[in-house]
Amino acid sequence: MSERVAIIGSGNWGSAIAKIAGFNAARYPDIFQREVRMYVYEEVVEGRKLSEIINTEHVNKKYLPNARLPENVVAVSNPAEAAKDATLLIFVLPHQFIVNTCKALKGSIGRNAHAISMIKGVDVSNRKISIYADVIEQSLGIPCAALSGANIANEVAADKFSETTVGYRPGQKSFALLYVMLFDTPNFRVGMIEDVAGVSLCGALKNIVAIGAGFCDGLGWGDNAKAAIMRIGLMEMKRFSLEFFSNVKPETFTETSAGVADLITTCFGGRNRRCAEAFVKTGKPFHVLEAELLNGQKLQGTETAREVHGFLKAHGRVNEFPLFKKIYEIAFEGCPPDQLTVGL
Amino acid sequence: MSERVAIIGSGNWGSAIAKIAGFNAARYPDIFQREVRMYVYEEVVEGRKLSEIINTEHVNKKYLPNARLPENVVAVSNPAEAAKDATLLIFVLPHQFIVNTCKALKGSIGRNAHAISMIKGVDVSNRKISIYADVIEQSLGIPCAALSGANIANEVAADKFSETTVGYRPGQKSFALLYVMLFDTPNFRVGMIEDVAGVSLCGALKNIVAIGAGFCDGLGWGDNAKAAIMRIGLMEMKRFSLEFFSNVKPETFTETSAGVADLITTCFGGRNRRCAEAFVKTGKPFHVLEAELLNGQKLQGTETAREVHGFLKAHGRVNEFPLFKKIYEIAFEGCPPDQLTVGL
Repeated sequence: MSERVAIIGSGNWGSAIAKIAGFNAARYPDIFQREVRMYVYEEVVEGRKLSEIINTEHVNKKYLPNARLPENVVAVSNPAEAAKDATLLIFVLPHQFIVNTCKALKGSIGRNAHAISMIKGVDVSNRKISIYADVIEQSLGIPCAALSGANIANEVAADKFSETTVGYRPGQKSFALLYVMLFDTPNFRVGMIEDVAGVSLCGALKNIVAIGAGFCDGLGWGDNAKAAIMRIGLMEMKRFSLEFFSNVKPETFTETSAGVADLITTCFGGRNRRCAEAFVKTGKPFHVLEAELLNGQKLQGTETAREVHGFLKAHGRVNEFPLFKKIYEIAFEGCPPDQLTVGL
Repeated sequence: MSERVAIIGSGNWGSAIAKIAGFNAARYPDIFQREVRMYVYEEVVEGRKLSEIINTEHVNKKYLPNARLPENVVAVSNPAEAAKDATLLIFVLPHQFIVNTCKALKGSIGRNAHAISMIKGVDVSNRKISIYADVIEQSLGIPCAALSGANIANEVAADKFSETTVGYRPGQKSFALLYVMLFDTPNFRVGMIEDVAGVSLCGALKNIVAIGAGFCDGLGWGDNAKAAIMRIGLMEMKRFSLEFFSNVKPETFTETSAGVADLITTCFGGRNRRCAEAFVKTGKPFHVLEAELLNGQKLQGTETAREVHGFLKAHGRVNEFPLFKKIYEIAFEGCPPDQLTVGL
């Protein structure tokens, strides 16, 4: 009856989490099976298959080169095989691959399986907004929780102190306890709260606020102004989530690692802040800065700002979120950045 | 029946606030008398009396040299004369001078006078802890509110965007509205909350957390760890205040400029953070660093950490606030800084 763990995804964050999950799965043999399978999208790195490198050298040379993975983490390049008979699935892959990957897993996962999503972002289609935990839940027909927090992957992999938050659904605390056991270590403290939507939305909406914080940096407005933008942004994140999702708890935003703590790291470090600062200083549009500064990565904050703006517009509610509105107008409609606080 | 405003104090922050209060007093002639008196502790600057410089050049050359004060702000070097017939008193002077200054004002302030305190810190004497708004209230027998926020004085004086928070007492909202009118400008946004103790305690306790954030910086622990320390610190600030004061609101800590926003500025900028970082990197004790780095200023965070520790010890409650405890032990009892998160 012990849990069979599968990690679906093996990027920077996926590999950092694999290090922890492998360690804890081996520590609790009554609760978890020792082997933790990790789905690896096959690539050739230095002339060898990435999955082969991971299984022989126990390092993800491409995405997390400085950390050693436990030997009980086994890379598998076929998703259905990685998830075969798995009862505890960890989704940690780019959001554009979720739907197809879930299709590939159907029929192979174990009975009574359950999942946890570590995917940032929200799925917006005009009038409808969904968290990826719901997308997974509906696609596979299994319960899905969410994990988010102030978790820069390289720092977690280097065993530096951090906290994170598991958001679970009403009546599913027993699953949340399993996730805490699988992830908690002395230097990676896992909190839990009955709020899967709030935890997921924190991870998505903070990136909009980070764009605003970056504008502020670019304008040279100082520490007071940046702290004010972050505070106002946190309040809009909370209000938006309470408004459009059910069972959201205000304290997820103001008291957890997924909320206020992750907002802080994202508004001081992070690529969203950095590109927004450059946007103000150089006057270049975001798609140019993305290409110049991010080495092919996508900028989540502007994308989420645009999607949330479209959603609010479809509902006639744009003006109730003046900071989100202003960030969108500056990023996409030529509004001068120094208008950031007008109307707040 | 219009309000006669007196500012008791004229340092860096007092002068910045005088610029705003003078401006708004002149804007609302039905509400405030035009003249705003400011008590200036007399000093000789470049061979002239500071009060004379302020009244002729309209600049506080010593404490806020880069901002022009409105001409209706009048410097007065005698406290009783500055406060004569005043109905709205703003206390913004170093806490060690409060008691004697209040004594000097007795008998000269106007009828039905009321006050607002902008003084950071708490008054601790073994088993008793008090906010300075209470000290003023008891000393003068007039109601006293509090103002605190993410307000670096030079940025406010330069008219850069910021927010602040007025905390008022139950049944005294009408006073709070006057303070909002006296201080709110397009770039200095004043919020209000019925919580004078919470607003005051935020301004004091955040400095303890900033010491922890500085330790974290000194240890090179990274962004995740620092955000975690800030989050845990904010929760201890809130819990401490709810525990030992009445009528405190949790949201003062998690949602206002006095709370989360000021914590952010203090943990990223600020002398407490800076000295704590140097403490870890150099191994020098705090009193040495104070002398070396602060040019005669006192370090509030270590002082408050020591006072709060003494208070908690007297009540047998030290272990319920593990971060406050650890910060005290590292600062004063030789505990190694890398033990910061042990026991959290």
